[in-house]
Amino acid sequence: MPISFKITYDNPQNRARLGLLQAPHGEVETPAFMPVGTAGTVKTITPEELTEIGFNMILCNAYHLFLRPGAEIVARHHGLHNFMNWPGNIITDSGGFQIFSLGGMSEISDRGVTFTSHIDGSLHFMTPERATRLQNMLGADIIMALDQCPPYAASYAEVQEAVERTTHWAKRCLSSHIRNKDQALFGIVQGGIFRDLREYSVSELLELDLPGYAIGGLSVGEPKEQMYEVLEYTTPMLPPEKPRYLMGVGSPDALYEGVKAGIDLFDCVLPTRIARNGRVFVDEGYLNIRNSVHAGDTNPLQQGCLCYTCRHYSRSYVRHLLNTNEILGVRLTTYHNLYFLKQYMQKLKEAIKNHDWENTVPFWKNEIV
Amino acid sequence: MPISFKITYDNPQNRARLGLLQAPHGEVETPAFMPVGTAGTVKTITPEELTEIGFNMILCNAYHLFLRPGAEIVARHHGLHNFMNWPGNIITDSGGFQIFSLGGMSEISDRGVTFTSHIDGSLHFMTPERATRLQNMLGADIIMALDQCPPYAASYAEVQEAVERTTHWAKRCLSSHIRNKDQALFGIVQGGIFRDLREYSVSELLELDLPGYAIGGLSVGEPKEQMYEVLEYTTPMLPPEKPRYLMGVGSPDALYEGVKAGIDLFDCVLPTRIARNGRVFVDEGYLNIRNSVHAGDTNPLQQGCLCYTCRHYSRSYVRHLLNTNEILGVRLTTYHNLYFLKQYMQKLKEAIKNHDWENTVPFWKNEIV
Repeated sequence: MPISFKITYDNPQNRARLGLLQAPHGEVETPAFMPVGTAGTVKTITPEELTEIGFNMILCNAYHLFLRPGAEIVARHHGLHNFMNWPGNIITDSGGFQIFSLGGMSEISDRGVTFTSHIDGSLHFMTPERATRLQNMLGADIIMALDQCPPYAASYAEVQEAVERTTHWAKRCLSSHIRNKDQALFGIVQGGIFRDLREYSVSELLELDLPGYAIGGLSVGEPKEQMYEVLEYTTPMLPPEKPRYLMGVGSPDALYEGVKAGIDLFDCVLPTRIARNGRVFVDEGYLNIRNSVHAGDTNPLQQGCLCYTCRHYSRSYVRHLLNTNEILGVRLTTYHNLYFLKQYMQKLKEAIKNHDWENTVPFWKNEIV
Repeated sequence: MPISFKITYDNPQNRARLGLLQAPHGEVETPAFMPVGTAGTVKTITPEELTEIGFNMILCNAYHLFLRPGAEIVARHHGLHNFMNWPGNIITDSGGFQIFSLGGMSEISDRGVTFTSHIDGSLHFMTPERATRLQNMLGADIIMALDQCPPYAASYAEVQEAVERTTHWAKRCLSSHIRNKDQALFGIVQGGIFRDLREYSVSELLELDLPGYAIGGLSVGEPKEQMYEVLEYTTPMLPPEKPRYLMGVGSPDALYEGVKAGIDLFDCVLPTRIARNGRVFVDEGYLNIRNSVHAGDTNPLQQGCLCYTCRHYSRSYVRHLLNTNEILGVRLTTYHNLYFLKQYMQKLKEAIKNHDWENTVPFWKNEIV
């Protein structure tokens, strides 16, 4: 088995748990947030900096790597770890989400999906077998089954069809997966906001006895309260002894709820994406560092933060860099945001242990403060 | 005296020499190349990375810092070193070159120069006194007198006027300089390609007995042979016991000639600027790493190079990053180019000592190879 998972502490108050995920490129303490390295790089940051912050698992996007540079070039480097100089673990997503959100999806059938590249409009045909082969070539530690992720607005009938196709595709991913010894294949639960479809999706996927399960189709535009409700009833349907991964979630408030609901893994572009727009996490919420109010402020982004950025630079300097389009600016905000989330997850882990969520994890407002 | 300079080895074959420049923020072995940190950051790179490469003196542009963020904000951080977290030495140029090349120069008189900002078109009036006060506020270790830098196409009469104004302004910079104890004021020799004007400029500036002299008005569009000729006769006019600084020069072939002519300090945006366009130094010349020929090349940028980039990444990966506009790409090419120039200067120093220039310093073609 490429991975093993062990619950090290189960909080009796709620579904939150601490775990240890043993994967080919090292041990991951869960719950864990995974930075996103879309095209084989966590934007602006080196692998050494990720290690320094404390991450040892990231997510890369198979869809993006398929289009550029192509799986053959990555394979020529003996896989993604070597290509991008990352000694830690990697999950690749299947590309499903990107095909349905970024690409011009032109035709979907049980066989597969025809889509046009968001880069040059070129036409491609993706099937579960091809998605698996692609991920086999990229060589991540955990790979994801190709799923159909319907938009938030989808009807019951559309979501039902997507669930059935996702199950069908997961089976084909499993049978075409040729690296079972060093790559763990996770399934993705769909079902939108329909409880019975979530139940149906889970029950079908459980028959495949996969080493881990992800909850997909959330954080796709629905109100957060609705996402929490789906999480609340879907998570307990999943086997407790296997890692649970909530895809596309990364704001502190949603991590809080996700961890409480029993999720072990999260990924999201949020911390890196907002950093490039000059938005940084502080204890209370977001800070827009481009704001002129920070022009002369010699304080760090967050008082007391021990990240590289906050130890060495002022709000004034970071603002100046962003204001003059200096690349160091987005490096510094990205570093801080990733560090902040890492520390935030640390606090959530403490809360699981000490049963004092309110005092351990500061209340984080999902707004600019 | 804020700085002291000592010749440690004088090559008897030519004018090249080794020296030690003791400045407020540490010792600099000369000849030295100084990376340019225009707006208070060497583009894409952290101060720690500069130190790791081996630099301990950089150049920042007073003109750019004057416009953004403004000297008051830097002064609030107790100067540029602290603002940008740089423990090494800093030279600030006076702004003269940028006013005459970047800004819309609207009027020049002996009093000063009126110019419009290249950023927002706002109108500013710069005088020698203001340029000095600006640099006193920025707090660099070495500051430059405000000069008038005429374009390559300027007539004899125009260059003569510029020389006279530059002398006049240098005197006013010296008398208004209020931080003589911790900031060394260098003069700038003008005179274009006219030998007698260079002589005149030098003789006038030497009367001020400044702690160092720069050669300005070169690398402004003239053919390299012409620049070498001017260097050849101007350098020996300068006092041998004081540091000589050739402004705006940084290609390996020109560094080679400059060092041979007896120059001690160089600065140039070349290594960092071309890096952002995907052009990297290799032993023979430039390599355009965006070229599709490198798409599958698993070799490093330069075989045998020990820089961070070459130790960890392939040409293929660097090309992929540039191709997908990933910021890490320009970090990696910038790091390599700065490291390359640092190593190249190291070879020039060895050549000074071992008298074997041809075998010590590889012939570097100023072209894409």
